[in-house]
Amino acid sequence: MHSRQICLASRPAAQLEPQNFEVRESPLPTLENGEVLVRNTWLSIDPSIRLRLDDVVPSGYLPRFELGEPLVGLALGVVVDSRSDDFVPGDTVSHMLGYRDYAVVSATAGGLGGAGTLTTVEPGTWPLQWFLGPLGSSGLTAYVGLFEILGIEPTDTVWISAAAGAVGSIATQLARRHGCTVVASAGTRQKVDYLVDALGASRAFDHHDGDVGALLADAAPDGIDAYFDNVGGGHFSAALDHLRPHGRIAMCGAVSTYGTTAPMPSNLFQITAKSLRINGFRAGAYNHLYDSMRSIVGPGLRDGTMLYEESVYDGLGSAPLALIEMLNGRTRGKTLCRL
Amino acid sequence: MHSRQICLASRPAAQLEPQNFEVRESPLPTLENGEVLVRNTWLSIDPSIRLRLDDVVPSGYLPRFELGEPLVGLALGVVVDSRSDDFVPGDTVSHMLGYRDYAVVSATAGGLGGAGTLTTVEPGTWPLQWFLGPLGSSGLTAYVGLFEILGIEPTDTVWISAAAGAVGSIATQLARRHGCTVVASAGTRQKVDYLVDALGASRAFDHHDGDVGALLADAAPDGIDAYFDNVGGGHFSAALDHLRPHGRIAMCGAVSTYGTTAPMPSNLFQITAKSLRINGFRAGAYNHLYDSMRSIVGPGLRDGTMLYEESVYDGLGSAPLALIEMLNGRTRGKTLCRL
Repeated sequence: MHSRQICLASRPAAQLEPQNFEVRESPLPTLENGEVLVRNTWLSIDPSIRLRLDDVVPSGYLPRFELGEPLVGLALGVVVDSRSDDFVPGDTVSHMLGYRDYAVVSATAGGLGGAGTLTTVEPGTWPLQWFLGPLGSSGLTAYVGLFEILGIEPTDTVWISAAAGAVGSIATQLARRHGCTVVASAGTRQKVDYLVDALGASRAFDHHDGDVGALLADAAPDGIDAYFDNVGGGHFSAALDHLRPHGRIAMCGAVSTYGTTAPMPSNLFQITAKSLRINGFRAGAYNHLYDSMRSIVGPGLRDGTMLYEESVYDGLGSAPLALIEMLNGRTRGKTLCRL
Repeated sequence: MHSRQICLASRPAAQLEPQNFEVRESPLPTLENGEVLVRNTWLSIDPSIRLRLDDVVPSGYLPRFELGEPLVGLALGVVVDSRSDDFVPGDTVSHMLGYRDYAVVSATAGGLGGAGTLTTVEPGTWPLQWFLGPLGSSGLTAYVGLFEILGIEPTDTVWISAAAGAVGSIATQLARRHGCTVVASAGTRQKVDYLVDALGASRAFDHHDGDVGALLADAAPDGIDAYFDNVGGGHFSAALDHLRPHGRIAMCGAVSTYGTTAPMPSNLFQITAKSLRINGFRAGAYNHLYDSMRSIVGPGLRDGTMLYEESVYDGLGSAPLALIEMLNGRTRGKTLCRL
C-alpha cells in the first residue's frame, strides 16, 4: 500500500510556483497499536502554510518544511483500517495529515502543533467538507476572533479584511448579524460587490484601488472600533491609524506578509496614543467553542440567512495550484482540494 | 504681571537642540471667574512631549505645538490668586500648564488632553516634587502598566526597558516586590549596575552593548512572559521575538522612535504565532488608582525598601536642557525642573 504526498521540491522565490512542489509516492508503514489508516477525501488549503515553505519561519510558529518533506494540513477522510479502539473502518474523521491521499494517523497523539488530533466527524445532513469551512476551523476562527478576541458590540464599526475568504466571509456575516456596522475589504471588484450585495457589508473596498488607509477612511469616515486582521502589513498599519481610542485588533493571519520581509509599520505609537489592544490568536486554542459557533452558523446556512462559497480543486495533484491561486487572491470563500 | 514661558522656536532636525526653544515673556490675562493663578515650583520633564515638537504628530495623540507656542506639561505650584471657590491662595496644586513660571489655570475644565485637571496636592511629609514622580504620574504609570495592563504574576519573567528612568525604576522595584524575575535594560553601564545592585533586577543589560534581541536572549534564555515597553522600535521587536506564547506587552512610551521614522524588519507575525496580547495605555485613564499605588510606593520609599532618584535642573531657562539630556539618556530617575 502506497501514499501519494505533496512534497516541497524547492523553496519559493518571491512568487510561489507549481515547480516548488512535487507529488511523491511512498510505501505506507504497517499500522502500529493506536494508529488508524485514513483515506483522505477533502484537504483544507490554508494560507499560513506559506510561512513554512521558507528557509526561515517566524520563531514561535510551526517549523519549516524540509526539502522533500510532505506538507501537512487539515483534512477529512474515511477510516479504512484501525488499530485503535476508538475508530472503526467507515468512520469519518478530521486530522492534520492532509496534502496526501492516504495517511497513517495516531489516534492518541495531540496532533501536529497541538491542533490536529484525530477526531470523529458526524456530518449529519451537512456537506462533509463544511467541517473544514464554515462549521470547521474557518468558522471557529471567525467566531473566536469576533466574540472572544474583539468582543464586538452591536454599536461597533468593524473592519474585516480578506472578507471574501473562508474566515472573512463568515466573520462579515456574523458581525452583521450581531448588529455591527461592517466595513469589508477584498482584492477584486467582483468580491467587493459580493460583500455588499450578498454578505451584507455596510461598505466594502478593493484594496488595489489606492492607499488602504485612504480607502478605509473613505469607507469609515468616523473611524473603526475593531479590526479583524487576516492580511497584516499595510492593512494592519491602516487599522492603527483609523481605530478610535480603545480600539481593538484581532490578528489571525497576515497573508500579505507571507514570503516577504515587509518593514515594520512606523505608526506603532498609535497603540500607545489611542490605548489600543491587539491580540494574536489561533482558533485551535478554542475548540471548546465549536458547539457555540455551530449553533449560530449552522442554522444560518440552513435557512439561507448566511451564505458560504467554496473554491474546489479536484485531485491531489491540483493541491499546489489551489494553494497558489488562493495566495494570489484568485479564489473565493473556502479553498479546498477534493480527492 | 507677566509669565515667562518656554516656547517652540524652531522644529528640531534629527537631534533636539537648545536653539529649538526660547523663553518668551507675555502679560498674564486678568483672572476670569473659575480661574486660578498659580506660581509654578516644579516642572515635570517627560519624553513624550518630543512628539509634539515635530511637524507631523501621530494621529490620535495630542496636537503639535505651533512655532512660538508655549509648551505644556505636568507641573506643581502654589495658588497666588483665585476666582474659584475650590482654591485659595497658598494651596499646593498640580496641573498641566508647565514650562512656564506663572500660569492661569481653569479650576473646572477637564485639562489639556483630559489629563491635567487642576488638583489640590497635600504632600504631608513627602517631598512635594515626588507628586510628579514616584507618588505621581510616573508611579501611576508603572503601577498601571504592571498590574492593570500586564497583570503580572510572581512566576513571570518581566522585561522592563528604560528601567533607570522615572517610570522604569518604579516598575522594576514593584515587579521585584511582587516576586517577578525582572530583566531590566538601560543605556549606560552605570545604570545597569544600579539596576542590579540597588533596584534588585535579576539581570540587566546596556542596549548599546550589541543587538537588543541577542542581549535579551542572553539575559532571559528561557524567554519572557511580559514586557513593559518604554522604548519602542528595536526593543519592541526584540520583545516580540522573545516573548513566550501568550506573552503580553504594555506600551507606555516609545522614546527610541520619537523624532525618527526608522523602518525595521517586521516580525509582527509573532503576535499571531504566539497569541500575544499588546496594550497601549495612558496612566491618565487610571487616576482612580492613585491611592492603591501610593499605598505601596509610599511605605516602600519611607522604609527604604524602594529607591527613587531625581535629575533636577534649576531655573525655567534650564527646562530645554533637561528635556534634551533626558531624551539622550543622560538623566537618571525622574527629570525635573525646579523654579
